[in-house]
Amino acid sequence: MELLFDVGNSYTMVGIHEDGKFLTWRIGPSSFESEDGLFVVISNLLDRANVDLKRITLAGISSVVPNVNFILEQMLKKYFSVETIFVTTKNKINDIAYLVDYPNEIGADRICNVIACKEEYGDHVIALDFGTAITVDVLEGGNFVGGAIIPGFKTAISALFSRTAQLPKVEIKVPEYHLGKNTVDNIQIGVIKTTLYGIERLIHEIKRERNKDFVVVATGGDMSFLSSKVSIFKHYDPYLTLKGILYYSREIKKLR
Amino acid sequence: MELLFDVGNSYTMVGIHEDGKFLTWRIGPSSFESEDGLFVVISNLLDRANVDLKRITLAGISSVVPNVNFILEQMLKKYFSVETIFVTTKNKINDIAYLVDYPNEIGADRICNVIACKEEYGDHVIALDFGTAITVDVLEGGNFVGGAIIPGFKTAISALFSRTAQLPKVEIKVPEYHLGKNTVDNIQIGVIKTTLYGIERLIHEIKRERNKDFVVVATGGDMSFLSSKVSIFKHYDPYLTLKGILYYSREIKKLR
Repeated sequence: MELLFDVGNSYTMVGIHEDGKFLTWRIGPSSFESEDGLFVVISNLLDRANVDLKRITLAGISSVVPNVNFILEQMLKKYFSVETIFVTTKNKINDIAYLVDYPNEIGADRICNVIACKEEYGDHVIALDFGTAITVDVLEGGNFVGGAIIPGFKTAISALFSRTAQLPKVEIKVPEYHLGKNTVDNIQIGVIKTTLYGIERLIHEIKRERNKDFVVVATGGDMSFLSSKVSIFKHYDPYLTLKGILYYSREIKKLR
Repeated sequence: MELLFDVGNSYTMVGIHEDGKFLTWRIGPSSFESEDGLFVVISNLLDRANVDLKRITLAGISSVVPNVNFILEQMLKKYFSVETIFVTTKNKINDIAYLVDYPNEIGADRICNVIACKEEYGDHVIALDFGTAITVDVLEGGNFVGGAIIPGFKTAISALFSRTAQLPKVEIKVPEYHLGKNTVDNIQIGVIKTTLYGIERLIHEIKRERNKDFVVVATGGDMSFLSSKVSIFKHYDPYLTLKGILYYSREIKKLR
């Protein structure tokens, strides 16, 4: 049984994996104030799901928030006597070359998505992760060849807010029509629909530019409600990042 | 000669109009701290351009920042003995009906764009204004029928920053390719290129949905550098909003 952490800017996904099954919880940034406080939250959630802490044999972490890594590591050291592995591009896993300018700059979550995509979806895959940011990661011939970063829906909506005086809060929803008749649907069309249209076109252009078909895999947030409406959500895998952390951690453990 | 103010969230465009010609300046929000301080800025800019303040006969204002309206009005009252007109949907100008849920909620800048579009580009026009927010406004059969709001490029890039720990500053530029090899081009592709793709598709869908062709007119920011590359900038009119303020103010003056 493995304990997995996907530490993001808005929240952290905590996961337990056993025999191909995942249990997951979301915790906020304030849970990372101290190692003991963090343990209270984690142990409580695991206890209530009848997870026996002693059966955990490995902890794998993807973090894009460096300043919480220390607390997380301390918590694992103090309360779990297991090996702790952080995802980085320094170790080559799944024979993936990172064909970009600064491989060390790639966020750990993106590395995990790429690893999981190669493991489960083949050598030509575009991974879309809908989080605080929407990341587009392209795996071509089994190697990471680049990507794009777009503000996430909530991030974009908050941004309209913080810098303008006249805009209200908005539900994440894709209107059927294209002309907004009030501020909320103006934003739903402008932020959510237009972003999805932009991503569809970006994928189309990548396929055209590389003269190749790619499997498109989406993860992050709760996008399952969009899967029937929007083609890019045909393959929706809520555990994609956790799967990447799992593969990575297991491989590193074998090497040690 | 008219003095025009397009008050936006990031900056205010100050314009002088005479005989179809515009002179413009951009001033920041801190210029609006006091009526006297504001006059120092305005009079200095106008003096240096040899504009004779006494020849100004009318002041027209579009504001989406209500809390600066009072200072602006006080300044005009104290230093310019001219009629001051604020743009609102309450007065029907150019025979435009606002066929949306809450006409009074439409930002004054969007009203001005719609008025100027009808005056200069016909009855079926889509106006795109690239500012703090990117607004899409649709004029169909000479009436305003709705639109969309998208975060502006700089707003979206700052948003990626403020909520994430690992992203640097980015120049406004459209890369030729579709796979980012470093963080900066990941963002340029994700924010600028993908937004433009999304807007192109949105326009396409509006035309399809309404079964009609529309002239697309872009304004705002300094988008002239994009006009040769991106089809939606074919008609780029940097003075669109100021033209709307001008038409509106002249019409209201006639009515009074």
